Amino acid sequence: VSDTVLHVHGAPLPDGDGIPVAVCQLAPRIGNRDENLRRVEQAVLRAAEQGARLVVLPELVTSGYVFRDAAEARSLAEPADGPTVTRLTELARKHGLVVVAGIPEAAGETLYNSAVLVDGSGLRATYRKAHLWHGESDIFTPGSARPPVVETDVGRVGMVVCYDLEFPEWMRQVALDGADIVCAPTNWPHEPRPEGERPIEVVRVQASAAVNRTFIAVADRAGSERGVSWVSGSAIVSFDGYPLGVADDTGDEQIVLARCEVHRARNKRTGPRNDVFADRRTDLYRGTLE
Amino acid sequence: VSDTVLHVHGAPLPDGDGIPVAVCQLAPRIGNRDENLRRVEQAVLRAAEQGARLVVLPELVTSGYVFRDAAEARSLAEPADGPTVTRLTELARKHGLVVVAGIPEAAGETLYNSAVLVDGSGLRATYRKAHLWHGESDIFTPGSARPPVVETDVGRVGMVVCYDLEFPEWMRQVALDGADIVCAPTNWPHEPRPEGERPIEVVRVQASAAVNRTFIAVADRAGSERGVSWVSGSAIVSFDGYPLGVADDTGDEQIVLARCEVHRARNKRTGPRNDVFADRRTDLYRGTLE
Repeated sequence: VSDTVLHVHGAPLPDGDGIPVAVCQLAPRIGNRDENLRRVEQAVLRAAEQGARLVVLPELVTSGYVFRDAAEARSLAEPADGPTVTRLTELARKHGLVVVAGIPEAAGETLYNSAVLVDGSGLRATYRKAHLWHGESDIFTPGSARPPVVETDVGRVGMVVCYDLEFPEWMRQVALDGADIVCAPTNWPHEPRPEGERPIEVVRVQASAAVNRTFIAVADRAGSERGVSWVSGSAIVSFDGYPLGVADDTGDEQIVLARCEVHRARNKRTGPRNDVFADRRTDLYRGTLE
Repeated sequence: VSDTVLHVHGAPLPDGDGIPVAVCQLAPRIGNRDENLRRVEQAVLRAAEQGARLVVLPELVTSGYVFRDAAEARSLAEPADGPTVTRLTELARKHGLVVVAGIPEAAGETLYNSAVLVDGSGLRATYRKAHLWHGESDIFTPGSARPPVVETDVGRVGMVVCYDLEFPEWMRQVALDGADIVCAPTNWPHEPRPEGERPIEVVRVQASAAVNRTFIAVADRAGSERGVSWVSGSAIVSFDGYPLGVADDTGDEQIVLARCEVHRARNKRTGPRNDVFADRRTDLYRGTLE
């Protein structure tokens, strides 16, 4: 894997004012952290060569996803400020990047399915996945804090991880907390779908972007692992809900690039008299917490 | 208009166990209540002929949408149990139907943009649109109650109206309140969209269906009115988020039919260990009300 040149999806970045964003759809090898970190470095470099300023990597990209058991996951985990973040910080500093990546985080004896946000100054924030999918709860402890929103050189960046995307309450929260763009490392398990339909995982992302008027950048998995295959649905979606770039149908490793005018996410108006935040009827929403 | 035969989209209803649902995409004439009610009757009859048991009609279908002012709207409004519901009740009784339609409701001096649910026993419930779009707030008072969910012969039916669909809190609530299928009269104003993209209005509906595992049946508008044209995006969406039927691209009046196995919406599980309701982190969602 490490010798291939990552395919860069579509045309080179057009000129324009938007922030160049890259989502890297990768196929880590379960259990091979050194190889996976090399692969991540290669992808981040390739994205930087293409002009990216914000780079998003998949969920658990340094370890792989389909762990045999908690012991295997533990053997691949590291502290949030461990070697992966050290290496990403060097890359971020050298190339002027903001990088979001999914890693298995060890905090003492506790494991989290986390996303880290790194820039040239180092680790800026860690987010611990709050909604765990399937067997993840045998291995990871769910996070108990909202996604951070970090002021960076490329705008206000929020983070969620995979299954979090299926909870509109969570996506609303990160938008209310000020995210211009939400970065989402994912490992979307493949499910059959009707002919000609875009994956529902991507549809949900489009809707979340539109109802909150935030950009969303999803880095999904390529390849397959211990019998599990993935949607390979990496996408960069605009604040109006329409995709700016989506992974091609090959399911291969690839980088999807788009420019995002992230400042436009700060205007929540959808018309002269409407605003997606102000028009909420919060007085009537109490029941959604019950 | 009244002399044309409504196009029925796609093949006749297949055999099967699901509830036959029809959404009627109509082009009412602004201001002509008698003509519009005739048109509604024709559509409901045509849907019943096709085997439908649940029939959904657009927002403000008896009046049209682009009112000159509140006085015009008032002249077209009627009580929830007025002549429209009387006529729909007769049709529902004769043909064994449940019907949801959008009407301008007059409650004393107050006007609401309402949806009514009717079966053979008469008016079962009225829902007053809680999220008003653009100039609607010059004319209508926003509703102050949650959407009702009504136990009917075809399942538990919820109602929302048009812009309500853009608030995931609201869609969550009607699902939590037990709706198997949410009926949504709409008048979606047309907006440009990228080539080849499904309208974002439909994408949002797909996502709402998927995250809540409810069916959603949307009856949108055809035609244009006083310079406003419509998406004409009527659709019946399954609990997995994929459409069972969508209006064709003509933008014409038409009936879209599909069978909905509505009982499947009562199972919120998405896998052996996941459930879209139980997996919510309500302990962490408080902020969405702020």
